[in-house]
Amino acid sequence: MLSLEQLKEITRQSESKIVLLVIDGLGGLPQPDTGKTELETARTPNLDRLASKGICGLTDPVSPGITPGSAPGHLALFGYDPIKYNVGRGILEALGIDFDIEKGDVAARGNFCTIDKKGLVTDRRAGRISTEENAKLCKKLSKIKLDGAGLFVVPVKEHRFLLVFRGEGLSGDASDSDPQQVGVAPLSVVANSPKGKRTARLANDFAIKARAALADSHPANMVLLRGFSQHPNLPAMQDIFKFNPAAIAAYPMYRGLAKLVGMKVLSTGSTIEEEFDTLAEHYAEHDFFFIHVKKTDSAGEDGAFDAKVRAIEEVDKLLPRITKLNPDVLIVTGDHSTPAMLKGHSWHPVPIVLYSEWCRADRAKEFGETACASGGLGRFPALEVMPLAMANALKLTKFGA
Amino acid sequence: MLSLEQLKEITRQSESKIVLLVIDGLGGLPQPDTGKTELETARTPNLDRLASKGICGLTDPVSPGITPGSAPGHLALFGYDPIKYNVGRGILEALGIDFDIEKGDVAARGNFCTIDKKGLVTDRRAGRISTEENAKLCKKLSKIKLDGAGLFVVPVKEHRFLLVFRGEGLSGDASDSDPQQVGVAPLSVVANSPKGKRTARLANDFAIKARAALADSHPANMVLLRGFSQHPNLPAMQDIFKFNPAAIAAYPMYRGLAKLVGMKVLSTGSTIEEEFDTLAEHYAEHDFFFIHVKKTDSAGEDGAFDAKVRAIEEVDKLLPRITKLNPDVLIVTGDHSTPAMLKGHSWHPVPIVLYSEWCRADRAKEFGETACASGGLGRFPALEVMPLAMANALKLTKFGA
Repeated sequence: MLSLEQLKEITRQSESKIVLLVIDGLGGLPQPDTGKTELETARTPNLDRLASKGICGLTDPVSPGITPGSAPGHLALFGYDPIKYNVGRGILEALGIDFDIEKGDVAARGNFCTIDKKGLVTDRRAGRISTEENAKLCKKLSKIKLDGAGLFVVPVKEHRFLLVFRGEGLSGDASDSDPQQVGVAPLSVVANSPKGKRTARLANDFAIKARAALADSHPANMVLLRGFSQHPNLPAMQDIFKFNPAAIAAYPMYRGLAKLVGMKVLSTGSTIEEEFDTLAEHYAEHDFFFIHVKKTDSAGEDGAFDAKVRAIEEVDKLLPRITKLNPDVLIVTGDHSTPAMLKGHSWHPVPIVLYSEWCRADRAKEFGETACASGGLGRFPALEVMPLAMANALKLTKFGA
Repeated sequence: MLSLEQLKEITRQSESKIVLLVIDGLGGLPQPDTGKTELETARTPNLDRLASKGICGLTDPVSPGITPGSAPGHLALFGYDPIKYNVGRGILEALGIDFDIEKGDVAARGNFCTIDKKGLVTDRRAGRISTEENAKLCKKLSKIKLDGAGLFVVPVKEHRFLLVFRGEGLSGDASDSDPQQVGVAPLSVVANSPKGKRTARLANDFAIKARAALADSHPANMVLLRGFSQHPNLPAMQDIFKFNPAAIAAYPMYRGLAKLVGMKVLSTGSTIEEEFDTLAEHYAEHDFFFIHVKKTDSAGEDGAFDAKVRAIEEVDKLLPRITKLNPDVLIVTGDHSTPAMLKGHSWHPVPIVLYSEWCRADRAKEFGETACASGGLGRFPALEVMPLAMANALKLTKFGA
């Protein structure tokens, strides 16, 4: 693999357009009765037509056997080595709600939770309180005074909030207070290295004051913090790839990931249809589009095989709204697999189809795990998707003399 | 690829069990009359059934084109980068006979050999003297006094022995005295770097005194030394993978390799049947088993195509003794190819089949090189076998936020 610096040397600006459609958690596992995965079960005439015209394969988001979180899965597709570039959970939350993170800030993902009289966690999500209730509690917590550091407590959705410390000498090198299980007390935050000491002290101070402030707010009577992290300062896609990238994503975290690499986030609705319409509306303004579909992953996480099938069919039905724009390169893939059978992200390689005038089509005639396994792209790291996209868009010059 | 340290962050202990069956030198080349390799020629209904239910592929033990020795072939399968972790032959011999190597010791593999009156080697294996004769001679050589260093000369099998120097300032950075051919004199040992000087001096001193001591012991009237090396201090499998691993291997070197990464070596018999029975006996006690079958490699090295076919058929016949234990993950592969047509190890990628409930079976219906080449695992580095095994055993958590 070329490094980003090496890649940058051979990228060139051009008129051609690339559309990267990421169907979150696309890959799956066979339903035992039929032997077919979610994607193979779904009726997908449009994706199958794309597979026939294009070239198919399977990607490993990180490497074989490794189950990626959302950040590594997307960073790899954007061309950033997910092992080298580590994005903390706190930063993702911050970017996803348009919080203006400054250099030096430390962000963490917060959960409102329920503790009993002994202080032991009984519900890590405080019964998924409403977003409105969340907003009220965050307002209360925002008034906490910390020794020499600014504090931001910003509601996200349901029980989730964003915590940001702003000040000198901070680092993300501190442990979680979230014990990831019930029946135990929230953990005290400790520095993973001397750099993290101040963050750990602020976090523990915040937790004590939050507990006092939330004493009467059952079920949301305590907070759990995880993923202390700082802005990773990734090189911008504009610089590396010399295009003008835009992101269309209904869910905050994916907008955040896109911003992290310099994409312009287009405002869109919450449905797939609205996302695809946003693409059409802004098609003239950009030459790279990342479109994110969340429903498939959510269904997979819920173990809802049929719902995932339907979500894929919905994408397929709407696909002509993308294909009629005639992008020079259209890629449809996922950031990882989320088999309904496993009710979570998994390590299984992810189907991919790439269509361009120059793709050298293979024999795959349908878009599914089994067909992709013998596709012309073979099995390859997701990190190589972006060089392939650039090549097929004729946006790469020769490497070497 | 994640580093071992990164992998360690996402491994977790669980009840599930992994069995890794290594059929040494499994891969082969087609017999010209039939166009079928040893594995494809063998009648293997049980392995074929496993291939039907499982997912197949081809591994590169080191990288394409590279023919591995036994150590790199196995280390890769155990999850240790064979390019980074180099294990000397001497150390392997020591571990394989349960010799208690101490930090700082230098070990070498010794051969009794035959030299003529001019001192030229006429037989590098001294006519493969009996192990009993070997033991007597080692006893004699053990009495040699070296300047300020302890000496151990321990019989292995036939003409092979282990030499160990113990003392201060030793290093494995010294050349072999074994010329790897007949008609020339044993080489004098030289230091490959200043660190190796003391080892080289001791080795040359030992060789002179050994020649004198063996003067009347024709055909075993001299020694050849190779593979000076020290314990490589590999991180233990228990630490990285958080399981309790056991090894079942009739041959010393493979037991030694297993010990090197922290496996408990189970005592077993010399036949495949006895090895498989040992697995059944100890199945409750461990959650990872490495079982090594040597016969296939020996037959390949001898150029005995039919004998290798029969050895594979013997494994297949006994396979139900493993499958009836219902391991959560069963992997059958080799540490490298040993085509009978080449009479030695080779660079050809090695067939692998992995079965687990979560493997996402491919279309491969038989276990053979050609079928594996279009298997769902594709072609991949053997180093990734262990992450795949761990993933399929649900012993890995998510990587990244």
